[in-house]
Amino acid sequence: MAVTEIESYLASRQQLVQEALEKSLPPADSYPPAVHRAMRYSLFAGGKRLRPILVLAAGEAVGGAPEPLLPAACAVELIHTYSLIHDDLPAMDNDDFRRGRPTCHKVFGEAVALLAGDALLTQAFAVLSRVEGGIPAAKVLQAIGELAAAAGSQGMIGGQVVDMEAEGRTVTLETINYIHTHKTGSLIRACLRLGGILSGAGEEPLAILTRYGENLGLAFQITDDILDVEGDFTQMGKKGGMDAARGKATYPACLGLEKAKEIAGELCAEAQELARSLGPAAEPLYLLAGYVLARQG
Amino acid sequence: MAVTEIESYLASRQQLVQEALEKSLPPADSYPPAVHRAMRYSLFAGGKRLRPILVLAAGEAVGGAPEPLLPAACAVELIHTYSLIHDDLPAMDNDDFRRGRPTCHKVFGEAVALLAGDALLTQAFAVLSRVEGGIPAAKVLQAIGELAAAAGSQGMIGGQVVDMEAEGRTVTLETINYIHTHKTGSLIRACLRLGGILSGAGEEPLAILTRYGENLGLAFQITDDILDVEGDFTQMGKKGGMDAARGKATYPACLGLEKAKEIAGELCAEAQELARSLGPAAEPLYLLAGYVLARQG
Repeated sequence: MAVTEIESYLASRQQLVQEALEKSLPPADSYPPAVHRAMRYSLFAGGKRLRPILVLAAGEAVGGAPEPLLPAACAVELIHTYSLIHDDLPAMDNDDFRRGRPTCHKVFGEAVALLAGDALLTQAFAVLSRVEGGIPAAKVLQAIGELAAAAGSQGMIGGQVVDMEAEGRTVTLETINYIHTHKTGSLIRACLRLGGILSGAGEEPLAILTRYGENLGLAFQITDDILDVEGDFTQMGKKGGMDAARGKATYPACLGLEKAKEIAGELCAEAQELARSLGPAAEPLYLLAGYVLARQG
Repeated sequence: MAVTEIESYLASRQQLVQEALEKSLPPADSYPPAVHRAMRYSLFAGGKRLRPILVLAAGEAVGGAPEPLLPAACAVELIHTYSLIHDDLPAMDNDDFRRGRPTCHKVFGEAVALLAGDALLTQAFAVLSRVEGGIPAAKVLQAIGELAAAAGSQGMIGGQVVDMEAEGRTVTLETINYIHTHKTGSLIRACLRLGGILSGAGEEPLAILTRYGENLGLAFQITDDILDVEGDFTQMGKKGGMDAARGKATYPACLGLEKAKEIAGELCAEAQELARSLGPAAEPLYLLAGYVLARQG
């Protein structure tokens, strides 16, 4: 894996996504400004844009151009951002820092942060409904249905609920798996599927993209939990060791660090094989799987 | 206006909506049950289903059947319900009662209530993406875009932000109008437009439905504020006089009760005229305008 290659790919895609995200929200001074400032504060907090880039890379892997996928790419990032704002609220994780900056509610107050999260979630569907570039309306509707399911009570939100209930309790690996495949995995899986669906992928490539997404999503969450154990504030932009302090259900806590790293490695290797099976256009997906693993650092 | 006529119309439509709402959410025992119970607790709290009925009545007014509009009707009620749950949270209005029952967070805790609200909002778009009955996919996409805009930071959420900022301050009638036309009006207007759009309404009838919705939405909020001054707990299912206690910006507070009633009456009369101009199929809309006014009690 060429490090420079994935880094230049990421940089070019981050720029595309950044420009599209810029246009995906009303300007910061739009009335009422409080909520628009809060939405932008969190959306432009320096995220790596991994999810939107996965949408684009999935499309590329099945022969689609990135531009028509930008609304879908923005939609998943808007949903990811809303979930972070609500997760950080005092009623949930009560976090003061995120990506090295005070969290949304620390800056704008709880009420505005709550509403900014609601507005980002709502805006995701507004943006997605505007997909153009000759993509059939029926495909866009399918994408909206899949994204809503992935983000809903039997997807991402379901994972958050179970994660919360599991805090401070001894839970089975089955429960940890449910949390990971839903809280993080569900949206990452949807990125791959949206990119495929909106690029007109056939049934078989779409199934491969889906499995790639499932592997990558779980690997991503495991490496995240490993980082929480091993990383420091500078690297993560938030306090480390928080999972252990909260008694969070994680792979490192349940299986130990070494075993967790081994599993993450296997999941990424399998994702890379799946990417290879899609041919040369899936090179970015291949490289992205290596990139996720390397986050272990 | 025949009272029995509107009441039997409402009863028949409420039943249609109720059955559709029942199917619009996962069963209460779906995993994870906490969030599904909370979603259902608030969705089936005895609301009058005015918004979904407006979607159906708007469709009927332009010659559409009610059944294909049920997903859209459910979607607006899901969004209305989420907004009530989030509005009641301690970070917002901190209300303990709603429709005579403890609010969602009093029963399920703040975190689950927050997530149940998020999940209802998300589910609205899942449901809307499944519109069938031969409605062209492009029309459904338009409806999704309009609903998201109506519920978003420049619609309903914008109204909530300004409402919150206005608490305890002296505000102009212009600000009160912004709050009302956005916090309540925006979603009610969208009900009318969605019913029209998904029933294939032409430009002119759609414009009439839109104006009807704008009138009715404002009248609805004004009568709501009048009820808060004049009503009692039994009638409203929540404590009266809360607006005044909080220094909320309302028509009665700004212009006095009599003037507020006069304006509500004028708005409903104009809505009835607009309904009349759509012909006999708009009879339910005509009756609904009278019904909203009669809430003044």
